[in-house]
Amino acid sequence: MDIVKELNKLIHPGRISTAAAVISQHNHDASYHPAANPDVVVFPENTQEVSAVLSFASEHGVPVIPFGKGSSLEGHAIPYEGGISLDLGLMNELKTVGDKDGHVVVGAGLTQFQLNDALKKHGLFFSVDPGAEATLGGMAGTNASGSYTVKYGTMRDNILDMEVVLPSGEIIHTGSKAVKSSSGLHLSGLFAGSEGTLGVITELTLRVYPIPEASVAARAVFNDFEEAVTAVVRLRTAGLDLARIEFVDAASVAHVNRFANASYIEQPTIFFELNGEVEHLQHQIKRMEELLKPFHLAEFLTETDQTSQERLWDARHNLAYYYIQAAPTKRMLVTDVCLPISELADSILHARQAVEESGLEAGIVGHVGDGNFHIIAMADFEDANEVTAAKQLHKEIVDYALAHDGTCTGEHGVGIGKKSYQSKEHGTAYDLMRTIKQAIDPRGIMNPGKLVD
Amino acid sequence: MDIVKELNKLIHPGRISTAAAVISQHNHDASYHPAANPDVVVFPENTQEVSAVLSFASEHGVPVIPFGKGSSLEGHAIPYEGGISLDLGLMNELKTVGDKDGHVVVGAGLTQFQLNDALKKHGLFFSVDPGAEATLGGMAGTNASGSYTVKYGTMRDNILDMEVVLPSGEIIHTGSKAVKSSSGLHLSGLFAGSEGTLGVITELTLRVYPIPEASVAARAVFNDFEEAVTAVVRLRTAGLDLARIEFVDAASVAHVNRFANASYIEQPTIFFELNGEVEHLQHQIKRMEELLKPFHLAEFLTETDQTSQERLWDARHNLAYYYIQAAPTKRMLVTDVCLPISELADSILHARQAVEESGLEAGIVGHVGDGNFHIIAMADFEDANEVTAAKQLHKEIVDYALAHDGTCTGEHGVGIGKKSYQSKEHGTAYDLMRTIKQAIDPRGIMNPGKLVD
Ligand SMILES: Cc1cc2nc3c(=O)[nH]c(=O)nc-3n(C[C@H](O)[C@H](O)[C@H](O)COP(=O)(O)OP(=O)(O)OC[C@H]3O[C@@H](n4cnc5c(N)ncnc54)[C@H](O)[C@@H]3O)c2cc1C
Ligand SMILES: Cc1cc2nc3c(=O)[nH]c(=O)nc-3n(C[C@H](O)[C@H](O)[C@H](O)COP(=O)(O)OP(=O)(O)OC[C@H]3O[C@@H](n4cnc5c(N)ncnc54)[C@H](O)[C@@H]3O)c2cc1C
Repeated sequence: MDIVKELNKLIHPGRISTAAAVISQHNHDASYHPAANPDVVVFPENTQEVSAVLSFASEHGVPVIPFGKGSSLEGHAIPYEGGISLDLGLMNELKTVGDKDGHVVVGAGLTQFQLNDALKKHGLFFSVDPGAEATLGGMAGTNASGSYTVKYGTMRDNILDMEVVLPSGEIIHTGSKAVKSSSGLHLSGLFAGSEGTLGVITELTLRVYPIPEASVAARAVFNDFEEAVTAVVRLRTAGLDLARIEFVDAASVAHVNRFANASYIEQPTIFFELNGEVEHLQHQIKRMEELLKPFHLAEFLTETDQTSQERLWDARHNLAYYYIQAAPTKRMLVTDVCLPISELADSILHARQAVEESGLEAGIVGHVGDGNFHIIAMADFEDANEVTAAKQLHKEIVDYALAHDGTCTGEHGVGIGKKSYQSKEHGTAYDLMRTIKQAIDPRGIMNPGKLVD
Repeated sequence: MDIVKELNKLIHPGRISTAAAVISQHNHDASYHPAANPDVVVFPENTQEVSAVLSFASEHGVPVIPFGKGSSLEGHAIPYEGGISLDLGLMNELKTVGDKDGHVVVGAGLTQFQLNDALKKHGLFFSVDPGAEATLGGMAGTNASGSYTVKYGTMRDNILDMEVVLPSGEIIHTGSKAVKSSSGLHLSGLFAGSEGTLGVITELTLRVYPIPEASVAARAVFNDFEEAVTAVVRLRTAGLDLARIEFVDAASVAHVNRFANASYIEQPTIFFELNGEVEHLQHQIKRMEELLKPFHLAEFLTETDQTSQERLWDARHNLAYYYIQAAPTKRMLVTDVCLPISELADSILHARQAVEESGLEAGIVGHVGDGNFHIIAMADFEDANEVTAAKQLHKEIVDYALAHDGTCTGEHGVGIGKKSYQSKEHGTAYDLMRTIKQAIDPRGIMNPGKLVD
């Protein structure tokens, strides 16, 4: 069967491509995972077209891989079994801004940056902020989170409803516009984080928040790695209303200085944000200073003006790109375990030792308020030793997290890169996940080989 | 087959009962739904026993109905097809209090009151507070919520992990102790709200919170129903950090006065709570007063001492019981639709009209901060006219909610009472729910006839 010829009957030929440039935009992600070409890339314009493609694919057993921006980090959107890469990029409409309700309705292809640009004039913002330009459909796909998650929750927490096209082509809604519900099984939660293996998200109703009256960013620079890590836990459990709390190690601060033209002290640092009412902030900053007194700080600085704050957070967000720029011939492997706060300090100390033993160029940063941290490791994937070292490092970090009540992935998801840890993490529950996958996608057309077998 | 004889091989006979008193404790719930006897009640002591009972039941196609406190309101735990009522009451251990992590591990039979009593000395509290003594397993079963949900979320939002016994007898964990995860499919969300139709929850890891430094309760009494409802929406969308915001109509205030020995003005009232740091509270109360200025208030009172606050919240929590006491020969029907905030004012006004037209004794109260409100209607279920009126009222309220982007149930769940609304609310997604049910419980032994067919 000639897939393209068949698709031409369903979708305008101008939105079906096998051009080399388009194929190669859809054959890789932002990580070290090897590329693999889709047979064809399709750009649907609306839900009915998605439905038509899935009906066709189901009938003929053709793999369909939903594609947002391809910024995921574990091979999620790479079509290892060929088939159709379904790029949602044209379905990027901002459909409704319900100021009063604090929600928006968006097409799955809209990106987080586009959404936040559009929301500004309404005095609103969307809180989930992974460090890459990503689509809201892709972010739902991986249950993304980011620096604001400690206060505002993950992607899943901020989804009220999704329109999803099932493998059969049927169109469902997973929720409603009510902020809570006990009606039926919780499909929004199930499809969030399902990595395109259960269906295609075409539209999302998301919670958005009023831009706070004021915010203040702070930077606490420590003389000692261990003290910095201990301080994170101390602040996190003190009941402060932190909007962000990000740990950045010395190596990563050095990258910030080099690529963001900054001159921060190159020592372990915590970046904070508090937001809310001005008076409340002053009080909280005072409490924070008190909580930090027992530690040996090289510096404690607050930034209240908008531009300095943005500079600081841009630097934090762009860190992975700085690592990539610093080692252009290498590729990036990022761990993202998440542990209970009580295990966090020890696990980061363990991580640092593991990094040192690996001999790799790597830094440690993280959304530590949630117990979630990353090792960003650069490795030459042509060099067998470096590959082994990188994979060994990842395994070592995950094994530690699983042995200490944590998860192998706090936000990036499973894709192919963390499939080997799923049985260990979920035990018999992994069989149940397979049962659910099998029930919803009996022909196995949706993003085959990812998340579950 | 003699079920009891077979169960005797698995469970100590002292914890298997067919005594009339025990059967009748397990044949009804807290609502108007007709009673139905289980064949036998089993009180497991541990997860292995639950597993043994389910394996046996699966093999022989015997219905199993998990039972917490039986406080649910839509026939959820009533064994309409007989079988085993599985009472989790003995599995009520508080296993771990992880102060630093803000989580606890509990047996499913522990109640919310027992948990909060035990947490007090740790300076912690559990936030989900339905207005009845309920088990944490049952609350997960219905995805319960309550007055604190506007600030702290629903039951589902506060579950990190559950141990669940599947119909096959297999034991799984649905999550981990990490506060966020993108690993695997989101089983915690799926089992929360599944009303015992997918498996038996035996243990829960729940998020708990530090008891706030201070709290203040406030009561705003309105001269006009419509203004009260409008004020709710105004306060809700003003970005105040409200911990509770509860609407109580005049009829309900009268019940409070009568049964809680109070002398509140019998007019539409909003009960609030703010909690946090003292200074922050003062500031917020001031803002609230400003926001309420345009309305015609009969009274605005704040309570800062603990005892008066508790009296106020006890009165609110016990409201349903006051209605029951006031009409001892009648039975209670409670609606619990939830709508977007922008639809709330109109929907409550519509509800009041519907109540008046129904001719029933009824009040309107609600967790309005979430867009969730109740009509508590008392009807004589021997009187065909009253039954028709009550059911017609419920349908009218649900139809309105569904036509305005809401859900038929914000917190009580579906049971049998709201099954007839499921197709309308979920459309094709209801078929998917059936598919999932069928995949997880192929023999249909788990709480048959509830939620889905
Ligand atoms: C520098 C850098 C920093 C990052 N920082 C973070 C971070 O802080 N937090 C975080 O969570 N992630 C982070 N990521 C990872 C990445 O940005 C997220 O995984 C993001 O959610 C992916 O979105 P995307 O649109 O690029 O999706 P893609 O990569 O295109 O797809 C991701 C997965 O979702 C599926 N999918 C995509 N669209 C849909 C749809 N419409 N319906 C169903 N399934 C769909 C795909 O099939 C795939 O399985 C980072 C990545 C980079 C490169
Ligand atoms: C006066 C009054 C006020 C109320 N106010 C509220 C309120 O504000 N908010 C709210 O949400 N609800 C409220 N409710 C309803 C009720 O309290 C909740 O539905 C509660 O969650 C039920 O808990 P339970 O232990 O009584 O469960 P049960 O009634 O025993 O069972 C409820 C459902 O969960 C299942 N179940 C029970 N235990 C388990 C388990 N271990 N594993 C799997 N499934 C299980 C049962 O099979 C059943 O389907 C109120 C009820 C009353 C009578």
